[in-house]
Amino acid sequence: MPNISNKGKAMPQSPIRKLVPFAENAYKQGKTVYHLNIGQPDIKTPQIALDAVKVHSLDILAYTRSEGSEGYRTKIADYYAKNDIHVKHDDIIVTTGGSEALLFAFGSIMDTDDEIIIPEPFYANYNGFSIASGVNVVPVISKIEDNFALPPIEEFEKLITPKTKAILICNPGNPTGYLYSKEEIKKLATIVKKHDLFLIADEVYREFAYDGATHYSIMQEDGLEQHAIMIDSVSKRYSMCGARIGCLVSKNKDVIQTALKFAQARLSPPTLAQIASEAALQTPQSYFDEVIDEYVDRRNTLIEELQKIEGVKVAKPKGAFYCIAELPINDADVFAQWLLEKFDINDETVMVAPAAGFYSTPGVGLNQIRIAYVLNKESLIKAVNIIKEALKVYKD
Amino acid sequence: MPNISNKGKAMPQSPIRKLVPFAENAYKQGKTVYHLNIGQPDIKTPQIALDAVKVHSLDILAYTRSEGSEGYRTKIADYYAKNDIHVKHDDIIVTTGGSEALLFAFGSIMDTDDEIIIPEPFYANYNGFSIASGVNVVPVISKIEDNFALPPIEEFEKLITPKTKAILICNPGNPTGYLYSKEEIKKLATIVKKHDLFLIADEVYREFAYDGATHYSIMQEDGLEQHAIMIDSVSKRYSMCGARIGCLVSKNKDVIQTALKFAQARLSPPTLAQIASEAALQTPQSYFDEVIDEYVDRRNTLIEELQKIEGVKVAKPKGAFYCIAELPINDADVFAQWLLEKFDINDETVMVAPAAGFYSTPGVGLNQIRIAYVLNKESLIKAVNIIKEALKVYKD
Ligand SMILES: Cc1ncc(COP(=O)(O)O)c(C=O)c1O
Ligand SMILES: Cc1ncc(COP(=O)(O)O)c(C=O)c1O
Repeated sequence: MPNISNKGKAMPQSPIRKLVPFAENAYKQGKTVYHLNIGQPDIKTPQIALDAVKVHSLDILAYTRSEGSEGYRTKIADYYAKNDIHVKHDDIIVTTGGSEALLFAFGSIMDTDDEIIIPEPFYANYNGFSIASGVNVVPVISKIEDNFALPPIEEFEKLITPKTKAILICNPGNPTGYLYSKEEIKKLATIVKKHDLFLIADEVYREFAYDGATHYSIMQEDGLEQHAIMIDSVSKRYSMCGARIGCLVSKNKDVIQTALKFAQARLSPPTLAQIASEAALQTPQSYFDEVIDEYVDRRNTLIEELQKIEGVKVAKPKGAFYCIAELPINDADVFAQWLLEKFDINDETVMVAPAAGFYSTPGVGLNQIRIAYVLNKESLIKAVNIIKEALKVYKD
Repeated sequence: MPNISNKGKAMPQSPIRKLVPFAENAYKQGKTVYHLNIGQPDIKTPQIALDAVKVHSLDILAYTRSEGSEGYRTKIADYYAKNDIHVKHDDIIVTTGGSEALLFAFGSIMDTDDEIIIPEPFYANYNGFSIASGVNVVPVISKIEDNFALPPIEEFEKLITPKTKAILICNPGNPTGYLYSKEEIKKLATIVKKHDLFLIADEVYREFAYDGATHYSIMQEDGLEQHAIMIDSVSKRYSMCGARIGCLVSKNKDVIQTALKFAQARLSPPTLAQIASEAALQTPQSYFDEVIDEYVDRRNTLIEELQKIEGVKVAKPKGAFYCIAELPINDADVFAQWLLEKFDINDETVMVAPAAGFYSTPGVGLNQIRIAYVLNKESLIKAVNIIKEALKVYKD
């Protein structure tokens, strides 16, 4: 029997994959499981986007241009202009989700064994894309005590080798909820210019900035034109994760021309989803205002409830819809499984994502979990209460 | 300015990319260009598939399971059963086009610098996927004189090294139109078993088998269960290239589990397109009968017209909707550009794909072009006539 690849063996499983059978078992026992573990929002997709595909008049569902239609890219550029990001349609390549934009970025700028520095904890699939691209992630630890702010820039500098090609940040962050300040972005800009690196910013949660904070994009930073690669997606912005539309944005022509070759090899991003995504750009501001209000309300409730639990440490998120909580336990993996297998209150339990899967350094974050506040407030309160009661009886 | 990757530099451009500006120039001069160069059929998508997305009742366009919904995969398995291919839903991973299935297959079974043997001429994007995956294509030449039949199996055997991991075939073939016989598949089966290799078959043109010939899938070959990986797609079958739905099929559990990790990293195939593709499975046989009749009619016309031209050699395709023609010229690249720039009949000209882009061995196929018969008969006749008249006056 022929062997699968070492790459394939090294590809990580999703941090919650191991827990899925236990969740399924809990359903079978008739339990309700509150899912704090997922990144699929429960927010409705804007009707205008859902309707757009209902009235399509296509008789051939054909490929679009590999880089996305010029019309759609021009409208994306308009959307960015409203966010004070000034790019042209040909600085944009439409991709199949932010996921594919990350793959194109990695492939365009890194070769086998090259290194990319990423503050951890980070979006777990960065590991998968790195392995698929043959590159090595070099983590730099950001701390819950600092709300997961940017680690001191010297920490980055220490890690730079001749193999380092890029720094990757997620802003605002999944799983941290941290929103980088303008000053932090400027520090990163200085270092990537000094060492001639790329700076990739995954800005798929751009709209989700709370407490009056303004998101500062790497594309707004003067002098970073040749270094900056922005990753974006309609998935979270319009709660249309299933569309699979994102984009890669850069003013560096070499990057765009190279990413375009990857795009051409896979022919086209999905056509129906581009129709929906183009329509989504007309979503009124009131939609976002409501969504942001909802998330802020949930976050406040979640943090408040978590802080009531003895021994729990939590970083207050300023963006996105995740937070990391440190629990008075030894191993969140075991705890998460125990919650599903052994604990319930009136047949209700909780599924959380053990945070170790978001760290690249082994042994870090073992007592942390990631909570996504993609449930309504009532469910969040119940879910946190279950964690609270569970911690009273749980023994590692 | 930071550098792009060597991988990025090596990524090939589409074989016709260089010609695009010349085609655009021809339009500007008011010329009509017959596009014999593309793989986008002009056939209508089944109405049932187009309608399915019009009546969707989603209020959140959510991610689906990374491997595709169980319901859809079960129906795909039913479709295969009708084609005498017996697989279960969990032998199937739904992908974003056949393109992504190829990428997942390459990543799952090959590491950097591993080798894959492919009969040439082959679908040009196999080069792109190979470079993106860091693997090396080892071509084995198939000849126009043999209608591009399978090269002698000894030719494959000569090329096998410790780095060889797989043989890849396209059946029926793009760009050759060749349909492999059962005997040829059996020869390949023997060699991959003997050398413990994977056999990947790109069967996206399965339905397009002409002259009463039956397609023989690698999935039908007993004893090949651990070796066979089939690539499939709805793109050509239902003329819905823009859906971006395909699948990877294998009975080898390691392959499926590994490909699933790649699938999980990119989260989900497109949701709306899965709705359309699931509906497309109900397309009546009459649709295919009509489409096949149409293609056969076009092919017959095309071949007949081409054979009338002095000095033109053409391999009669038994499947798909492409053919390779050898012209009495030195360099099809120059000829193709000249057609767009300098030649017309009553302001009409032709765009063809130079075949060299489908060969991996340098210098082979320079006098060949690929013709896709995705135009109606009338246009095909006109287009071939333009080539005929052009050849009378053209000088290399
Ligand atoms: C930080 C981050 N980046 C990228 C993605 C990829 O999303 P998509 O491929 O749906 O655009 C996600 C999805 O959860 C994410 O959280
Ligand atoms: C031989 C072959 N394989 C795979 C593909 C990829 O098609 P898709 O990604 O649209 O399924 C094509 C498209 O032209 C093709 O010709």
